[in-house]
Amino acid sequence: MAPGEVIITRKLGEALKAFFDEKTFSNVGILMDENTKIHCYPLVRDLLPNHLAIAIESGEENKSLKTCESIWHQLTEARFDRKSLLINLGGGVIGDMGGFCAATFKRGIDFINLPTTLLAQVDASVGGKLGIDFQGLKNHIGLFKLPEQVIICDQFLDTLPYDQLRSGFAEVIKHHLISDQEGWPSLIESSLSDISWYDIIKHSVDIKQKIVDEDPLEQGTRKILNFGHTIGHAVESFYLNQADKQLLHGEAIAVGMIAESYLSVLKNGMDKSHYNQIIDYLIDLYNPRAIYHEDIKAIAHLTTQDKKNIGSTVKCTLLKQIGEANYDITLGQEEIYHALNQYNETLAKHHK
Amino acid sequence: MAPGEVIITRKLGEALKAFFDEKTFSNVGILMDENTKIHCYPLVRDLLPNHLAIAIESGEENKSLKTCESIWHQLTEARFDRKSLLINLGGGVIGDMGGFCAATFKRGIDFINLPTTLLAQVDASVGGKLGIDFQGLKNHIGLFKLPEQVIICDQFLDTLPYDQLRSGFAEVIKHHLISDQEGWPSLIESSLSDISWYDIIKHSVDIKQKIVDEDPLEQGTRKILNFGHTIGHAVESFYLNQADKQLLHGEAIAVGMIAESYLSVLKNGMDKSHYNQIIDYLIDLYNPRAIYHEDIKAIAHLTTQDKKNIGSTVKCTLLKQIGEANYDITLGQEEIYHALNQYNETLAKHHK
Repeated sequence: MAPGEVIITRKLGEALKAFFDEKTFSNVGILMDENTKIHCYPLVRDLLPNHLAIAIESGEENKSLKTCESIWHQLTEARFDRKSLLINLGGGVIGDMGGFCAATFKRGIDFINLPTTLLAQVDASVGGKLGIDFQGLKNHIGLFKLPEQVIICDQFLDTLPYDQLRSGFAEVIKHHLISDQEGWPSLIESSLSDISWYDIIKHSVDIKQKIVDEDPLEQGTRKILNFGHTIGHAVESFYLNQADKQLLHGEAIAVGMIAESYLSVLKNGMDKSHYNQIIDYLIDLYNPRAIYHEDIKAIAHLTTQDKKNIGSTVKCTLLKQIGEANYDITLGQEEIYHALNQYNETLAKHHK
Repeated sequence: MAPGEVIITRKLGEALKAFFDEKTFSNVGILMDENTKIHCYPLVRDLLPNHLAIAIESGEENKSLKTCESIWHQLTEARFDRKSLLINLGGGVIGDMGGFCAATFKRGIDFINLPTTLLAQVDASVGGKLGIDFQGLKNHIGLFKLPEQVIICDQFLDTLPYDQLRSGFAEVIKHHLISDQEGWPSLIESSLSDISWYDIIKHSVDIKQKIVDEDPLEQGTRKILNFGHTIGHAVESFYLNQADKQLLHGEAIAVGMIAESYLSVLKNGMDKSHYNQIIDYLIDLYNPRAIYHEDIKAIAHLTTQDKKNIGSTVKCTLLKQIGEANYDITLGQEEIYHALNQYNETLAKHHK
């Protein structure tokens, strides 16, 4: 067992048994939210040794230092020592924050991730990015550390609502766009209702693992995984605290991929025919809404807080073509502003 | 330049110039407290590129998440990106907390340490332990990460009060006790007023570096560095919030070394003559006070929260003889209780 190992399995019991056969712990805790407590915990509860159950409230707004303090407090009260284990049972929030809490508790205890959403299974499961939001900025405080193991079981997807599945699927689409030209035609022919999740997850994990292995600390090539995220994250952050306009991560990334595909044509020589394929597919699948004109400037400004930036210029990943991406492309504020306006026009045209 | 490199120099300007010649940063920040701002910042200010100055309140009670939030906020406001540098100018609190803030800001920016107290120069400068206190527990939240460089200049010691010097000296004594039998006789003959700090610092850094290199993540042999700290930390923590009884770190460690030397005779076969040498020297140098009888039980209980423990038993480092230590020795609550009572008796006898 090497840290960061990802196991994709339909047999959760066997995977957990193998894990606990190999390593023993003085304490075991499991972190979940109110949803995974109902839908996922029953699938694992009896497969675990005696454990402490910690439940937090779901939602990005709880991916905060305040929640970390509560988790650290519960681990302390239960007298967790350095030979303890934390199991993160949930989506990205649980994995990122639970990992961060484990990696910093007494300077680091072991943790494993059992991602329960498609998004976490195809994205957060690989690469060791841990963190929490801070003052409205996503994953602003965190670190890189690999879990002891990641166990992905597509059984967890059975209880996932359609919009959550579709949100996670945005990362699957991204993986194709940045590095699998060959797989693209069959992807856009597929339907979320009869797809083989096992194969889709394996495809995404393999692509991401290959990229991360080349550049674990995101000094260079790993940045291509941020396609759609420069603008997408800004859109997501901007609407984070507006209950009626809040977007799921993948929904925001879909918006980001549309806008950044436009910039890919403008600034990175992508062929217009590729652009058209991408936006037709994304708009049909996500049916995204227009962005209020008065919000565009603020969203463009938010992109300057992206962690990939150096200094005050925005560094972005753009496509060269479907299946190939380039990173560290400098964008000006007016270009982002322009791309978001263009996004609105494209939507209007598409719906005519 | 390899991460963790320690430079001991009398020429601060040359060392800083060499550092900034080798690597450029988009932003530079310097973290200090009100004392190092007055006494140390003037020695480095003009040697640095344009920078952001962040001053926090000194003291262990400010080594908190709340202070981290303020530091992260200031870095964010000043638009620090991933190619930024944080310089920690101060003692252990500044180094541990500034390092923690840097290591977690945007998943990690570079930092260097300029330790300004003897304690930080001979102890915290080596080994990459970062962290903050949490709910009264020292360094309860943190991680291991090496600074890009540590620059130690004994010039900073010129403005250090005697009790701070003596506090740092406890770690120098500890380094002799755990691994330098040969150096012990000359150590106990030396006087803090005419010692060669350069040599003393180099001696301690070399000893600690050798131990840490063998076991960077404190899985085994590194634990010998905790001699005096199981009981010492508990004493320090217990009096942390009692202004009139608060102890400096080294003062508490001196108490811990006395009590744990007694346990070394009792449980680890150390010769009584070694014990007598140690306590005579420590009591004369630190003139420590007795511990209130009613506090002893609570202090003994606090040792169970030590990060080196596994489960509910206390794991302690004890001496075999002067210059040799063993780790992971199990202590019961009653043994610690007994050692603290014995400490009081020893003081009483010594002062007769």
